[in-house]
Amino acid sequence: MNLTAGLRKSASFRGGQTALVSGELRLTHAEVVDRISRLAASFRKLGVKPGERVAILATNGNHYIECYFAALWAGGIAVPVNSRFSIAEMVEQVRDAEPLLLVCDGAFLEQATQLMEACSSLVALVVTSGASGLPRAYDCEALIAESACCEDALRGGDDLACIFYTGGTTGKAKGVMLSHRNLWVNAIVTSMSFGFDETTIALHAGPLFHLGAGARVYTTSLMGGQHVVIPRFTPSDVLEAIARNKVTVATFVPTMLGMILQLPDLDSYDLSSLKLITYGASPMPEAVLCECLRRFPGIRFAQSYGMTELSPVATILQPEDHLSSAPRHRLRSAGRPIVSAEVRIADADDREVKPGEIGEIQVRGPMVMMGYWRQPELTAKALKGGWMHTGDSGYFDVDGYLYVSDRIKDMIITGGENVYSVEVENAVGSHPGVLQCAVVGIPHPKWGEAVHAVIVLRPGTSLSAAEISAHCRTIIADYKCPRSVEFRDDPLPLSSANKVNKELLRKPYWEGHARRVS
Amino acid sequence: MNLTAGLRKSASFRGGQTALVSGELRLTHAEVVDRISRLAASFRKLGVKPGERVAILATNGNHYIECYFAALWAGGIAVPVNSRFSIAEMVEQVRDAEPLLLVCDGAFLEQATQLMEACSSLVALVVTSGASGLPRAYDCEALIAESACCEDALRGGDDLACIFYTGGTTGKAKGVMLSHRNLWVNAIVTSMSFGFDETTIALHAGPLFHLGAGARVYTTSLMGGQHVVIPRFTPSDVLEAIARNKVTVATFVPTMLGMILQLPDLDSYDLSSLKLITYGASPMPEAVLCECLRRFPGIRFAQSYGMTELSPVATILQPEDHLSSAPRHRLRSAGRPIVSAEVRIADADDREVKPGEIGEIQVRGPMVMMGYWRQPELTAKALKGGWMHTGDSGYFDVDGYLYVSDRIKDMIITGGENVYSVEVENAVGSHPGVLQCAVVGIPHPKWGEAVHAVIVLRPGTSLSAAEISAHCRTIIADYKCPRSVEFRDDPLPLSSANKVNKELLRKPYWEGHARRVS
Repeated sequence: MNLTAGLRKSASFRGGQTALVSGELRLTHAEVVDRISRLAASFRKLGVKPGERVAILATNGNHYIECYFAALWAGGIAVPVNSRFSIAEMVEQVRDAEPLLLVCDGAFLEQATQLMEACSSLVALVVTSGASGLPRAYDCEALIAESACCEDALRGGDDLACIFYTGGTTGKAKGVMLSHRNLWVNAIVTSMSFGFDETTIALHAGPLFHLGAGARVYTTSLMGGQHVVIPRFTPSDVLEAIARNKVTVATFVPTMLGMILQLPDLDSYDLSSLKLITYGASPMPEAVLCECLRRFPGIRFAQSYGMTELSPVATILQPEDHLSSAPRHRLRSAGRPIVSAEVRIADADDREVKPGEIGEIQVRGPMVMMGYWRQPELTAKALKGGWMHTGDSGYFDVDGYLYVSDRIKDMIITGGENVYSVEVENAVGSHPGVLQCAVVGIPHPKWGEAVHAVIVLRPGTSLSAAEISAHCRTIIADYKCPRSVEFRDDPLPLSSANKVNKELLRKPYWEGHARRVS
Repeated sequence: MNLTAGLRKSASFRGGQTALVSGELRLTHAEVVDRISRLAASFRKLGVKPGERVAILATNGNHYIECYFAALWAGGIAVPVNSRFSIAEMVEQVRDAEPLLLVCDGAFLEQATQLMEACSSLVALVVTSGASGLPRAYDCEALIAESACCEDALRGGDDLACIFYTGGTTGKAKGVMLSHRNLWVNAIVTSMSFGFDETTIALHAGPLFHLGAGARVYTTSLMGGQHVVIPRFTPSDVLEAIARNKVTVATFVPTMLGMILQLPDLDSYDLSSLKLITYGASPMPEAVLCECLRRFPGIRFAQSYGMTELSPVATILQPEDHLSSAPRHRLRSAGRPIVSAEVRIADADDREVKPGEIGEIQVRGPMVMMGYWRQPELTAKALKGGWMHTGDSGYFDVDGYLYVSDRIKDMIITGGENVYSVEVENAVGSHPGVLQCAVVGIPHPKWGEAVHAVIVLRPGTSLSAAEISAHCRTIIADYKCPRSVEFRDDPLPLSSANKVNKELLRKPYWEGHARRVS
């Protein structure tokens, strides 16, 4: 039960077939395994032992995928760094993970330099695009060329494979520890649900530092399929990559699908190879979904619901549920639990409630994370009683379909990114002119949700929305900063527990919108 | 990753639907879980703690399946007893496993009485069909009625779930230790390969003390499907059960399929619900397979190859490979490795050989057994280097299809049962009139292989084949006794290693037959 098993099998049984396409580069299964094995050997020479971390800060590409696997092959742990983080957030993440190596590409040399200085655990920098001239830096291709192949360390089962960071409610990113078993089970079960096999050609369009895209890499590899990776999402690049490489499956967040639908020359692309689009990570506007079904009648659609802590899939809304013959309301559902997951709705005392009743969505099974990296208390709280407390609320209908009704944790999902309100509130509130502030998600046609701040200024102060945003950008990542600001003269409304009543703030924006039931 | 997860999910989401059919009895998912949970509670009251064994000696039926799961729910380990064993063999197996409880049905009261006397670990006997009047005996239905439901012990992962006994080369049965993870992975991956889901209605026609049938029970349960169980295989009972219960999948050993084809009124049964027949456990005569494909054009066929030590499936020959459009020689193949298995062919020094070269079939992956119960040396030998040494020889073709060419371990598979030649040779050889003896498998139209003894008598002795068989039946199970005997005057031919050259003995019988390449 190790994530590198698919590499070896593919090299043995279909070594000459294409395994990975990245831009103009096409690598066979034999070539990919050869490169990974050599890179792993050089990682070991640089000091990577079982359990050591290898951080990756790079644009999507073949190197990203190769480093994912080389870290594991060497016996180590892959730690993708969110490239949209501010440098302060990156430093915090890398200091927390304490990796031995940092891999970066040419786009992130500046950040990498600062990380090498700020993070004492880092002994070497591996640069994927040419020599950097930086101290302690190695050229990735030179490492591959110079090293001989090595044996796989064969870590597996409950050995830690990856640490994926998600935004923390306290502003501190949490490292989600996923084992080989966690990701292996997700790979096998989602493949089973979606019908992946060695003929699958998967497009990785989302950022590989997120598990949504990352898990699909492991899945594709274990099934012996082919990766097609593009540096970043643009609607035209995606469609061109699908047409050119005969992609059979792609996964998108709703925002991406919305953008694809806007493309004026959408009909000019040959998408006949595409059999399945999976979507998830944030509420899908029903209008976008219906438009997708109308515009792409030959493509099946499936939704997956989950979170990084669940490796990541817990429920799936199957293609059959998207057919016009299925009950229409199912399109607002997150589907049914996958075969490996037990999913229940529980009240505040962790007692299971009946179908139709809203409570917290809790999940048990072999895909539940090992815990949060070096945060035993947070881990114990999240995994209390053996169930992952997702922090999402929802209910089951009598047919066993899950409906996600709100995010208890007060999180905004914008363009597929998790943004915790409290973190933004802290940034806004740090401006001396701000007296009171609450941040909520409001519907956005492109991003699903947008970060919206409601602010009460100190008496005698005058501030513009632009000034608020500019202040925030010095503290947190750009995508977390408020996209809109609403100034109020009166104090913010409070709930019975004397907390800001965010429902009241959200309500006018969400009326008439699906999924964000409150 | 525990084998009882499917029970809870099915009770939650489809509690009112049929879960189990045994004769006239129909139980819903809610009823089955209720009964299992109560039975587990009574097992605990009788002393079953995590890690304790519960032996089962019974005819196929709902109780067999319920006890499988109740043992696990209680935290214990299920130990099916081969009901075809002689009493001496049963005593040996039960003494080896040291179970706390023995479950039996009315057909095995005599053996159970002897086992209770001979095996000091047994503290109680649970009888599934009425009070037995025996000491320390409990009526299973009374236990269920009297006990309240209990919480699942939630054993899982690498916890031992079952011990299945297979014939040993030295005449001593080996207990194959299978974990929850082993059987869970087999369930998920075979379901994925065969398309099982909650609409699956599986017929259990083979004996549940064998993993071939037993694993399908766990698979069906995890997928939320329905069990149909019949007490024993007869062709007409099988077809009637399929027709009456709209069975969608059945698994047979080739012998069974051969017998079904012989049925005069075969065409009178409504088999329209049956989508898939899987077969395996012994070489499939090509004539039988072709006749099946001709007679059942609406049913898909798939072969699985494996062994108890592999939980049990390692490779699958898919339905597509059975189509007339597929290369004809594929019908002689055991198919390709399942997604969870790494399969290689190795030479005597455990070095991988090239496609086309014959060597030992070795398997690595999460379905490989934990080991042989209390036999660390045998375990170390079988799992040397992390690979299960199957003892079967075979080769891969260039397309990655496995061909099983012989059984290195000198085992005969007759009617789905493993018979080790050495055990039979010991029994034959114990007759004072026998000077020399070798036992081989020879082709048999019904049983796949038949046990055949080649014997040299002591000078001046006269013995008939019937006398040899009668003698053997006092020592070993009936199905292990020679079906045919060949008397020779000259000493048996020897190989270069001075062992009896069994290839020479087999050769005249196997010429012109598939699979048994030598």
